[in-house]
Amino acid sequence: MNPEQSSNTGNVFGMIGLGTMGRSLLLNIADSGFPVAGYDRNAEQVDFLAREGEAFPVQAFASLPEFVSSLKTPRAIMMLVPAGPIVDNVIAEILPLLEKGDILIDGGNSHFSDTTRRDAALKEEGLHFFGMGISGGEEGARRGPSMMPGGDTEAYQVMKPILEAVAAKVNGEPCVTYIGPGAAGHFVKMVHNGIEYGMMQLIAESYEIMRKGLQLKNEEIHQVFARWNNGRLQSYLLEITRDIFTYKAPGTEHFHIDDLLDIARSKGTGKWTAQVAMELEIPVPTIDIAVAMRDLSKYKKVRVEADERYAADHPNAIKTGNREELLTQLEQAFYFSMIATYAQGMHLLAKASVDYGYELQLDQIAKIWRGGCIIRAAFLEDIYTAYQQNPKLAHLLLDPQVLALMNETAPGMRAVVATAALSGVATPAFATTLGYFDNFRNGTMPSNLIQAQRDFFGAHTYEVIGKEGIFVHTDWLPDALD
Amino acid sequence: MNPEQSSNTGNVFGMIGLGTMGRSLLLNIADSGFPVAGYDRNAEQVDFLAREGEAFPVQAFASLPEFVSSLKTPRAIMMLVPAGPIVDNVIAEILPLLEKGDILIDGGNSHFSDTTRRDAALKEEGLHFFGMGISGGEEGARRGPSMMPGGDTEAYQVMKPILEAVAAKVNGEPCVTYIGPGAAGHFVKMVHNGIEYGMMQLIAESYEIMRKGLQLKNEEIHQVFARWNNGRLQSYLLEITRDIFTYKAPGTEHFHIDDLLDIARSKGTGKWTAQVAMELEIPVPTIDIAVAMRDLSKYKKVRVEADERYAADHPNAIKTGNREELLTQLEQAFYFSMIATYAQGMHLLAKASVDYGYELQLDQIAKIWRGGCIIRAAFLEDIYTAYQQNPKLAHLLLDPQVLALMNETAPGMRAVVATAALSGVATPAFATTLGYFDNFRNGTMPSNLIQAQRDFFGAHTYEVIGKEGIFVHTDWLPDALD
Repeated sequence: MNPEQSSNTGNVFGMIGLGTMGRSLLLNIADSGFPVAGYDRNAEQVDFLAREGEAFPVQAFASLPEFVSSLKTPRAIMMLVPAGPIVDNVIAEILPLLEKGDILIDGGNSHFSDTTRRDAALKEEGLHFFGMGISGGEEGARRGPSMMPGGDTEAYQVMKPILEAVAAKVNGEPCVTYIGPGAAGHFVKMVHNGIEYGMMQLIAESYEIMRKGLQLKNEEIHQVFARWNNGRLQSYLLEITRDIFTYKAPGTEHFHIDDLLDIARSKGTGKWTAQVAMELEIPVPTIDIAVAMRDLSKYKKVRVEADERYAADHPNAIKTGNREELLTQLEQAFYFSMIATYAQGMHLLAKASVDYGYELQLDQIAKIWRGGCIIRAAFLEDIYTAYQQNPKLAHLLLDPQVLALMNETAPGMRAVVATAALSGVATPAFATTLGYFDNFRNGTMPSNLIQAQRDFFGAHTYEVIGKEGIFVHTDWLPDALD
Repeated sequence: MNPEQSSNTGNVFGMIGLGTMGRSLLLNIADSGFPVAGYDRNAEQVDFLAREGEAFPVQAFASLPEFVSSLKTPRAIMMLVPAGPIVDNVIAEILPLLEKGDILIDGGNSHFSDTTRRDAALKEEGLHFFGMGISGGEEGARRGPSMMPGGDTEAYQVMKPILEAVAAKVNGEPCVTYIGPGAAGHFVKMVHNGIEYGMMQLIAESYEIMRKGLQLKNEEIHQVFARWNNGRLQSYLLEITRDIFTYKAPGTEHFHIDDLLDIARSKGTGKWTAQVAMELEIPVPTIDIAVAMRDLSKYKKVRVEADERYAADHPNAIKTGNREELLTQLEQAFYFSMIATYAQGMHLLAKASVDYGYELQLDQIAKIWRGGCIIRAAFLEDIYTAYQQNPKLAHLLLDPQVLALMNETAPGMRAVVATAALSGVATPAFATTLGYFDNFRNGTMPSNLIQAQRDFFGAHTYEVIGKEGIFVHTDWLPDALD
């Protein structure tokens, strides 16, 4: 580290990585009047920022030392580079140029375990490290994202005015808050993305029910999503879905959605959420199935062959006398499942908060998710209220208002799952979510049988009701010959 | 390593760890006439083996060097100790006593990634390392387990006569075969356990439908499971389930199953299977949901509270005029789901075989699972036949005989999922499995919408039908103001 570069004047924020997201966020910060600096190894990106930032207090650098020297101390520098080893490389490169007290922020989608490791290593060097989740895509970065910074509170004070100025606003309040120590920010962003996977799968299944089950045309599907988005289901994902169903490629007369290949790709954050949830022993089955269905989608050739060979013997459409009734039920099913998906995500956050010492405030997380991010939705207001009223709420589905919504929508949910099952329209996420709910409200699950089986074949022992905490083994075949 | 201890006479097999499994397997080997040696740090276990093995060619040692010296070279030594760091400790302790060419076998449920690491390290030392899955519990170990050894073929020849002699037999053929290089054996055993989790969850849900949905008594449930086990559903897990429903604790007049707490425990192998499947991007949703439901079961207090607060507004029993009809449908649903679960497991094995270079022969794996192991079932004969007829079968559900079984049982499956959904009886594994199947046979999944959404909010690009492999981005809101 080179203390001679200290300066208490200069740019107040630096960005390493001037791709779409980095450039947009940096221009957003400059837009708010903060003098900023950007650096990229790629000269084209540097030039692009210089041109785009002409009207703003933006300096673009092709030299890392010059970039670092341009910053006011303690420096606040964000990296927006691809997750993985590149982050480590950038850290190694910039480390000799920094000095104690500087703040290095990883704004990408790094796995939280990498953030934990980097945080510990940089603490040794006297630096403040932040893992910051940023959601909202390019548009969000430029106009106002939702941001989830995790690290130490002291350093957060330095960044706070900048982050609050550029974040999305809801009722005048910024969609950013200090999340917690260590990798808390990246963990919360990961769960945000896990919920996003669940929502996208539920929307896809709603589309499938309308398209294949009810044989609706794209225009009609557009209208349903538009109607949903004007009501209590209002959300960013429904909003863009509504718009997708009106888009025709230039020079064509058909809807572009029909042109797209049905193989879903991913960057891994949904998978991470599902894997970590299993590690923490928290059920998030709606997210699990969303990941599994993206994976299944990749087996296109197998699916096409199976389609041909199974089609004759299975139904593929919903036979209902009342299309409007089913659409009403579908709206209920979507709301029901959407609530349950958020509930699974919040449950996971609560457990991680305890196990990893993240000290998460679930109400504040719901609050900053209300705007800017991909999973923003009217319902987040309800989640915010639920945890405001009861910060120790054991599970979102136990909140009285949420409970009332689940009760109101359950009949539609049950009807949709039953109708789809009988008609052969695939709705794994809806069906899984109902199964989750029905076991969630099940005071006596059939897991006593699983314990009996485990003890029978593996002597794994079990607990007896009323004698919890004492594990006993039984010889279940006392009369069998040895 | 100490080459002076070489010997071409002596015991032909050694066991480190004389707990239930280790002792049972060692006595089984001695039973077949092989002279064996056992070692444990715990003197009581050593004494116990000495007493139990009196009539057999068994030597019990409290000294590790004496134990090693008693073995014929190349030595074949199995560790049956708890998975994790203890395995590494044992390896470190025994390594100086071994010589090049000796064979060290880890017979426990180690994570396959640990086995990969240990295999590489011991290869450096000139030793042969085997990760060997053993299934069958105590009874299996003593009377004939199913064994899944992975390592190098040369060393396998040394162990082959012993393993084949002690393994379970089906039609006179031993339930053991060389699985593949490296950690192949432990990987296959892990997937075996994942399938086991799925089966146990499906049996538990069948119990729930009978107990809560149809209000059957334990004696009646016993009869249903007994009937199933006498038919095409025949399996070890149904066999023990049948017996569990007749067991009364000594001195009591009620069925013991009703005494057991409904919190399901686990050792982690199902979780590992689900996590690895996500890593390999293979959908195994029946295993995922089985893991999630074990996790949900742990939230007993929350579930009891939810039960009280939700009960009034939700159905909890199946209203059907025809109990026998539903039980017939349930038999079909169970068979359908059981097949789909095995199919998911085989799909995962096929992918791991390619990605990890395991060179798995799926027919041989099905063959050795027909006896000795926990997931043995009549249906494994069908899987064996399917892969015998077509070793390159892309997915078990594409096999013509399996396809016919799926078609025959699908109506019952659909009826059970629909009935349970409407009646509030939780059947997440059945419902998830049907969703998996309906998308498996879906040549056009709604994943095109997921790709459109990803491109809309994150410019993640997508493929167009007919132009696969080319990823394009679209501005989905061309008329929007910037």
